[in-house]
Amino acid sequence: MNANTFGRCFRVTTWGESHGRAVGCVVDGCPAGIELRESDIQRELDRRKPGGIYSSKRRETDRVKILSGILNEITLGTPISMMIENVDVDSRPYEELKTILRPGHADFGYLAKFGIRDWRGGGRASARETAARVAAGSVAKKILGIFGISIYGFAREIAGIRCEIGSVEEAFEIAEKSPLRCPDADAEKEIEDRLKQAISEGDSVGGVVEVIAKGVPAGLGDPVFAKFDAYLAYAVMGIPAVKGVEIGRGFEVSKLKGSENNDPIVIRDGRIGFASNNAGGVLGGISNGEDIVIRVAIKPTPSISKPQKTVDFERMEEVEIKIKGRHDPCIVPRAVPVVEAMVAMVIVDCMMMQGLIPKKISL
Amino acid sequence: MNANTFGRCFRVTTWGESHGRAVGCVVDGCPAGIELRESDIQRELDRRKPGGIYSSKRRETDRVKILSGILNEITLGTPISMMIENVDVDSRPYEELKTILRPGHADFGYLAKFGIRDWRGGGRASARETAARVAAGSVAKKILGIFGISIYGFAREIAGIRCEIGSVEEAFEIAEKSPLRCPDADAEKEIEDRLKQAISEGDSVGGVVEVIAKGVPAGLGDPVFAKFDAYLAYAVMGIPAVKGVEIGRGFEVSKLKGSENNDPIVIRDGRIGFASNNAGGVLGGISNGEDIVIRVAIKPTPSISKPQKTVDFERMEEVEIKIKGRHDPCIVPRAVPVVEAMVAMVIVDCMMMQGLIPKKISL
Amino acid sequence: MNANTFGRCFRVTTWGESHGRAVGCVVDGCPAGIELRESDIQRELDRRKPGGIYSSKRRETDRVKILSGILNEITLGTPISMMIENVDVDSRPYEELKTILRPGHADFGYLAKFGIRDWRGGGRASARETAARVAAGSVAKKILGIFGISIYGFAREIAGIRCEIGSVEEAFEIAEKSPLRCPDADAEKEIEDRLKQAISEGDSVGGVVEVIAKGVPAGLGDPVFAKFDAYLAYAVMGIPAVKGVEIGRGFEVSKLKGSENNDPIVIRDGRIGFASNNAGGVLGGISNGEDIVIRVAIKPTPSISKPQKTVDFERMEEVEIKIKGRHDPCIVPRAVPVVEAMVAMVIVDCMMMQGLIPKKISL
Amino acid sequence: MNANTFGRCFRVTTWGESHGRAVGCVVDGCPAGIELRESDIQRELDRRKPGGIYSSKRRETDRVKILSGILNEITLGTPISMMIENVDVDSRPYEELKTILRPGHADFGYLAKFGIRDWRGGGRASARETAARVAAGSVAKKILGIFGISIYGFAREIAGIRCEIGSVEEAFEIAEKSPLRCPDADAEKEIEDRLKQAISEGDSVGGVVEVIAKGVPAGLGDPVFAKFDAYLAYAVMGIPAVKGVEIGRGFEVSKLKGSENNDPIVIRDGRIGFASNNAGGVLGGISNGEDIVIRVAIKPTPSISKPQKTVDFERMEEVEIKIKGRHDPCIVPRAVPVVEAMVAMVIVDCMMMQGLIPKKISL
Repeated sequence: MNANTFGRCFRVTTWGESHGRAVGCVVDGCPAGIELRESDIQRELDRRKPGGIYSSKRRETDRVKILSGILNEITLGTPISMMIENVDVDSRPYEELKTILRPGHADFGYLAKFGIRDWRGGGRASARETAARVAAGSVAKKILGIFGISIYGFAREIAGIRCEIGSVEEAFEIAEKSPLRCPDADAEKEIEDRLKQAISEGDSVGGVVEVIAKGVPAGLGDPVFAKFDAYLAYAVMGIPAVKGVEIGRGFEVSKLKGSENNDPIVIRDGRIGFASNNAGGVLGGISNGEDIVIRVAIKPTPSISKPQKTVDFERMEEVEIKIKGRHDPCIVPRAVPVVEAMVAMVIVDCMMMQGLIPKKISL
Repeated sequence: MNANTFGRCFRVTTWGESHGRAVGCVVDGCPAGIELRESDIQRELDRRKPGGIYSSKRRETDRVKILSGILNEITLGTPISMMIENVDVDSRPYEELKTILRPGHADFGYLAKFGIRDWRGGGRASARETAARVAAGSVAKKILGIFGISIYGFAREIAGIRCEIGSVEEAFEIAEKSPLRCPDADAEKEIEDRLKQAISEGDSVGGVVEVIAKGVPAGLGDPVFAKFDAYLAYAVMGIPAVKGVEIGRGFEVSKLKGSENNDPIVIRDGRIGFASNNAGGVLGGISNGEDIVIRVAIKPTPSISKPQKTVDFERMEEVEIKIKGRHDPCIVPRAVPVVEAMVAMVIVDCMMMQGLIPKKISL
Repeated sequence: MNANTFGRCFRVTTWGESHGRAVGCVVDGCPAGIELRESDIQRELDRRKPGGIYSSKRRETDRVKILSGILNEITLGTPISMMIENVDVDSRPYEELKTILRPGHADFGYLAKFGIRDWRGGGRASARETAARVAAGSVAKKILGIFGISIYGFAREIAGIRCEIGSVEEAFEIAEKSPLRCPDADAEKEIEDRLKQAISEGDSVGGVVEVIAKGVPAGLGDPVFAKFDAYLAYAVMGIPAVKGVEIGRGFEVSKLKGSENNDPIVIRDGRIGFASNNAGGVLGGISNGEDIVIRVAIKPTPSISKPQKTVDFERMEEVEIKIKGRHDPCIVPRAVPVVEAMVAMVIVDCMMMQGLIPKKISL
Repeated sequence: MNANTFGRCFRVTTWGESHGRAVGCVVDGCPAGIELRESDIQRELDRRKPGGIYSSKRRETDRVKILSGILNEITLGTPISMMIENVDVDSRPYEELKTILRPGHADFGYLAKFGIRDWRGGGRASARETAARVAAGSVAKKILGIFGISIYGFAREIAGIRCEIGSVEEAFEIAEKSPLRCPDADAEKEIEDRLKQAISEGDSVGGVVEVIAKGVPAGLGDPVFAKFDAYLAYAVMGIPAVKGVEIGRGFEVSKLKGSENNDPIVIRDGRIGFASNNAGGVLGGISNGEDIVIRVAIKPTPSISKPQKTVDFERMEEVEIKIKGRHDPCIVPRAVPVVEAMVAMVIVDCMMMQGLIPKKISL
């Protein structure tokens, strides 16, 4: 529960401001003996990178450098330090916002907390920090891969339009090819219309990201406080723009009866399983062997060019602003790999807490 | 992020099984110099206690004993150990469930994790553990009171029926007199009908609890991972039966545009404030001085007397069960003080992390 | 690194004041499936209990009650709460010290920190708190026993008289029968003379406790900060009256040359081992498979009846005091099981961090 | 108590291998509003840098880069990432040690723990890692300076020769000009003779480092486990080559009587103080306002060119080695700023835990 460090056994510390020299992370607690290349990290970073037609026009290469923790592309069990230099920095549009609080942004909180804020591109509160999370998450995914666990994420809803999906794997495959990470081609068209409309109005839209983890063993999570779902909620609510989290059927369960919501328990292939998965893979705060299903509500990007009422905190007067700079009109597609990264870290950490991942993976 | 301990500066460890000798907690990190009596704790425990017409028929007095940390009703700054003895224990109805997994319950997870489970009344996974949380939360509330911070909780929705509210204080006052903790008398009638219907069918219903904290200072929460809302999400998702968490407008924001969702910033009484509170008092993971608004989805009680399909894990065969014992047909009313308690702990802990609460309160 | 909680995976929280209702602890993280009886705990408590000819005249039965975490004498993996009621409390001799700082005691620090202190028998700072540590340590020892690890402690020096030892097991056996926990009968006589002399003068003496752990696997400890020896140092320096800690040859190594201090590495029974053990079983902060050897310096009991200069903090004037009450003229013998307890907790916790102890021990 | 992260409020994570691309650290929890320049860090790094006549011939410039956490040389309250590139790397002398365990080194432990080790220059276990600690410690010192707290370190003993000192400030001043960081010119000559002798024999020597902190407020440290002295012991025992730690009179107290060891309490300038400081500024695990005095035993550098018996772990046979490479024949002088750095971090962290350092220092 430390500010910039996440995890207990698999511990990730991120650092860096949006317009500073670089962003990066230190991954402490990765087992020794795992093959790890910069290309493993790069692949995931490229999924988060700006550049799509519906994303920020900032042109970051997001090129990662591994600075420590590895010898001949094998992890040593020591901290893996990774750095992504900020290349395409343009702080000029922010000059005029130096003393102005952007509505929907962290500006006021940072001022209240620290008495100072980095006004350049959102500073530490910028979603650029999530590049470091994705870098760390790609190490977590690499570990999960060894244990046959996969993470699938996609947009479940954008601008109020819900995507319907078939199998998880299929949904993921479709979404990966979609500029909006939509797993449903029909819904995608409608979404594009709404999104273009919002862009033309200088506005933005929100949505819902869904992430599913397959192959997660039963028994993860530490009751009573550090439950698996509590830990997941912590992990994803800490992603910028997230305002809600639900597991399995989530808020819908409040409208169900016990007889509708309880997942019947069955014997399947000689093992205990569940006939449905309303629980989203977690019961009593412990994973039950079914798919982990988590959804997060993403708010519309607060940076919009529509005029907004706010305050100049130095002159202490109310002003109207139109925000310039390069912003995503919808952050949902780029949030997908970030949510995946956080979910991957939680699973790895819980597996380590449960003694399921050794400190040394045999070479 | 430890199993049975919550918090960083204000640290609460709970212990105890539903049908063991007692449940209890140790509160470590409470400032010295605060007046604290058993009656302060008892008042809150009584709000959680079973006994209403719509709750479990187990008759626990929930009488708390303070065992340490206090001299002449003043806190010493040392751990406050509290114990609530289990008085009305009847494990007989559980005998026949010794080897049977109850659907919707933690049984399977505990077995997967620990290889053993306390079958008597749900053991550690029983909501009885939350009595210890409420006891600890009442200490947190006592501290918050010194700083003019109040916590209000009530049922926002039960069985799909939504309660409308006026002012928060008023809603709280109405709810405290309602056996269902409903802040809306009209909705309450409908809810009662549905609840009676469910009871008659041997079924159960869920709902949504809302908690609002007033007077919380701006600046709480530690970016980037230990954000205020992330920490709140962690705290409440770890309460039994919770499947979803949202802050402010929550999931609704996914359907809004940026121009609709951003709260305009204004000058109010010479200070910076917000014209609306879609954010629920948290921006960028830091409290912004507005009311903290959090809602949690509570699933229908899994223990129902309707027949259910499940597995006898010793004989490894599918069986049908009807659950006996004394269960709440709707856990929402009794969950309210538990959610309040967790929210109170988070606020106290974050204030301490921010240096806003001294280790010694002057006498 | 929390005030009253020790450990990461095996977490012990102690509570209680010397003259309060009780002292106790909560052990969180103990694996499930271990046989544990109150008698296992009691045996260790009896080793620490006052009552010898050279110890405090307070007559505590130190009877432990296990309140949770166990079903039919098998651990459940849930928190084990233990309580030891304070029976023989006599606060009268402390009445006159209410406003007086006892030299060598924690009184001033508690006042500076908390603005209040429990003047009755030392309150939380009393060595009585260590009964709770011993209770928790006995659970750790039980776990270590399963893995063939044994902990041996004894007085290595008292009042400046050094004890010579043969084998560790033998030294332990002798010491267990000695009222001073001396492993050397000749030295013991000399020590008794000095101790009687000190008692007759209303004075007290100090000493050195040595603890050796046999069977500890190589690979424990987490570089670079949470090294095995750093963690041991943390554990034992936190015991009341400890002013120094050393591992292996300890301070002596500062006078050696590299060629004298380095332990040659050899092949022994087909495995890698060390020809000597100057390192005390830890190299580079990681256990190396040899005996863990730790020594702690114990200061003379500060409570003496000789007149001492000090301050009455309420009247803010210098005064002279003679301390009454029931005190050990030498705390070394009773400190032995406390040091053992802390060492046992460290080893268990590090083994869990290394994934060497499963969450469930098969029944 | 995390492997590569130190601290609770002021949290330092170090990373990097001796012959990797760089070493570095992330300082999380530094208050906002503090002036901080690379030159502040560089000054301390230069004190630790190799280059003296009695130190390693490796020629590292140890040039630090601040990568984040700062805007216009003012801290932002966000993580301060610092990097020191490894410039003068020569791994050739280590090639022949790839499969050989160096006596007195961490090699065997790393193998036992991780199944792999970076054989190049000691990898993560190299004292090069301490450059990152010194960088972080210089931030801690900067904070302490604001509160009038100073840290003084020097060699108290080398090769069995003890240094006598007058005032602490004077001792520090002399030591800073000495290539051996000796505060006593007479002792220094003797030490030089012994050191030259050891060098000529291909051997090494050890010693004792003393660090004194002046101006530390009373009330630091969190009983009962996270005591101030326990935390200090943890901090410094984790420094490479440290085998013992003592506070105040340390091991000597074991030979004293209570009447000799207790520091009389007096009124001094209208405030409570102590007439002597055997306690080294800590009583009952809480700072008492007197100077903090800590000493650590440093073992002789294990890398010596004298022939030594050891094992080739791949061929599993005993071999004899003479270690080449560039090593300090005595690590004591360069250890001084490292011990200071760790002590500084502990004090800052404890002051933050006690609420004595705000999150924002007013500009």
